[in-house]
Amino acid sequence: MNKVVVAEKFALFDEKWSPKIVGELNGQYVKLVKVQGEFIWHQHEQEDELFFVTKGKLDIHLRDQRVSLEEGEFFIVPAGVEHKPVAEEEAHVILLEPVATLNTGDVRDERTREHLDWI
Amino acid sequence: MNKVVVAEKFALFDEKWSPKIVGELNGQYVKLVKVQGEFIWHQHEQEDELFFVTKGKLDIHLRDQRVSLEEGEFFIVPAGVEHKPVAEEEAHVILLEPVATLNTGDVRDERTREHLDWI
Repeated sequence: MNKVVVAEKFALFDEKWSPKIVGELNGQYVKLVKVQGEFIWHQHEQEDELFFVTKGKLDIHLRDQRVSLEEGEFFIVPAGVEHKPVAEEEAHVILLEPVATLNTGDVRDERTREHLDWI
Repeated sequence: MNKVVVAEKFALFDEKWSPKIVGELNGQYVKLVKVQGEFIWHQHEQEDELFFVTKGKLDIHLRDQRVSLEEGEFFIVPAGVEHKPVAEEEAHVILLEPVATLNTGDVRDERTREHLDWI
């Protein structure tokens, strides 16, 4: 039972698109991820996914719109909705999603992380 | 499907200790609450509860310790753990907890909010 200082946790890693777990509640993980560049189109069939930006800018592309997030803004991608996160420059994002959620959703490729570490 | 600009939402209300709903995912609500002063001791029997401070300072008193949160820090109070939030000055907090969670947990008093509004 310790508090989490988000900025300190972000300072512990540099890898992009590789979420780290920093908390668990009610069957969900709180994760931190650094992003830069373009991720892949994917969806999570059963799970809603929250993106909260703490540094930089993140665009979440949906098939029919683009949601542009800046620091202090969040967006929830509903289950079953295809999305592609894109960040021109490095951005820091808090994710919230069920424990079972895979980062690439219904797609498996070299970006898929089957196992996530706690930091 | 709209993004949430947290600071804009906080600007919509002034009432203390009265959480407003700003998002829902996987059976949980994302809530915003302004706090100042001392809340009551309570617990949530089944639900873990996350407190993320976006402005000011919040102390979460537990029976055996005190967790002091500042901006950009969060703490998860596990289900069944008695806690009392205290803020000397106004603080802004994002809460995450199951839809069914009552703000005063196992206690009902004049601070209990049976119905929460979406903003």
